Amino acid sequence: MSGWVTIAGLGPGADALVTPEVTAALAEATDVVGYIPYVARVAPRDGLTLHATDNRVEVERASHALSMAAEGKRVVVVSSGDPGVFAMASAVFEAVENGEPTWRDLDIRVLPGISAMFAAAAQMGAPLGHDFCAINLSDNLKPWDLIEKRLRLASQAGFAMAFYNPRSKSRPHQFTRALEILREECGPNGLISFARAVSTPEQKIVTVTLGEATPEMADMRTVVIVGNPDTRRIGRYVYTPRRAE
Amino acid sequence: MSGWVTIAGLGPGADALVTPEVTAALAEATDVVGYIPYVARVAPRDGLTLHATDNRVEVERASHALSMAAEGKRVVVVSSGDPGVFAMASAVFEAVENGEPTWRDLDIRVLPGISAMFAAAAQMGAPLGHDFCAINLSDNLKPWDLIEKRLRLASQAGFAMAFYNPRSKSRPHQFTRALEILREECGPNGLISFARAVSTPEQKIVTVTLGEATPEMADMRTVVIVGNPDTRRIGRYVYTPRRAE
Repeated sequence: MSGWVTIAGLGPGADALVTPEVTAALAEATDVVGYIPYVARVAPRDGLTLHATDNRVEVERASHALSMAAEGKRVVVVSSGDPGVFAMASAVFEAVENGEPTWRDLDIRVLPGISAMFAAAAQMGAPLGHDFCAINLSDNLKPWDLIEKRLRLASQAGFAMAFYNPRSKSRPHQFTRALEILREECGPNGLISFARAVSTPEQKIVTVTLGEATPEMADMRTVVIVGNPDTRRIGRYVYTPRRAE
Repeated sequence: MSGWVTIAGLGPGADALVTPEVTAALAEATDVVGYIPYVARVAPRDGLTLHATDNRVEVERASHALSMAAEGKRVVVVSSGDPGVFAMASAVFEAVENGEPTWRDLDIRVLPGISAMFAAAAQMGAPLGHDFCAINLSDNLKPWDLIEKRLRLASQAGFAMAFYNPRSKSRPHQFTRALEILREECGPNGLISFARAVSTPEQKIVTVTLGEATPEMADMRTVVIVGNPDTRRIGRYVYTPRRAE
């Protein structure tokens, strides 16, 4: 049997959010590759080898998956959320572009998953119910100036916004700066929600105004959602109307 | 038993993309409410009443669902894709805000689904692998000028873009104008993909440059994805690198 690589989204954490398509791919795999906590979500079984690696080695991990597929193995690369959103799908194609020419002929598939931002939005109500954007706030792979520019342009466009990787120990000042920019552009009354560990037993969701928000409300397990000027609370829900002027 | 309303995302079309959480909610429902083709995806059974309505009556449909829940029924409002993305979740909260005060105390849940844009992106490779935005190109609920402004700001931000409702028979000229703006802002060499009926037997995906794109490539069943300046083809795949300068 010839090998393949499938990049599969496990969703944000709950088993009930894993699609049957992903479950079926895992059942056919000989090897599963991914970041340690995501591989830990795959049940061990005979005939399946689990390759759990540290974060920050995405392209090495992708190359390993492609090499094994070239040897005839059936490899699932696991991501949390959706693999196409700040996750392993782009890393695999980067590895294809820069790797062995024969890798371009491999059977590579991407299986979508429930993204952290949509799972978080669903728990809040419907804060992304109008035009929105998604920004990775980490400057590991792009300059911070570009992030600031995108925050300003997105605010001026009236987009709701979802932020991934808002804050890490190595760059705590940057999310402070992001909040300053949002207050400058959107004023203090806009709504901002912090959704941590969505769909897991540790889930915690807090919604405050931009004026009340503090950097400590976010960490690397948090997805942050900022409303547009029309976003409002109704009872315990936060939603953005479909209509805009 | 007390009633509830659950707004559930059925994903883009394939049964293998419906989450177990949504399947479980449908199994508990007494009533299913939604647009005709989405309700048609729910299997009839004893004890389940299917309420299929035309499009363009979202708030009436939402009010009907809330009324039935207030009477003790267990109501699932079905959306395709993710219900929080240009779909029924916001419409339900609009109906709550403007409807009976007692509706605010109802048990309302939103269950995320695989969005059309992420299912389309997965079929292409990883075109949304960097910062991106999602814009509804219909001017039913917002002025066209605002859409033009968002297209320009999103281009200037370097966002990849996903467009919903790109083109309808009643406003064929608007998508022509959107393509003009994208060519002005991004140049003729950027990649644009048209994904129709993703994950169904009628799926068709075409990728061309902005210079080659014509309005007829889109209709209301099409999700359009525009890359950022770094988006590229590698073999049969389209992907956007995680890195940016």
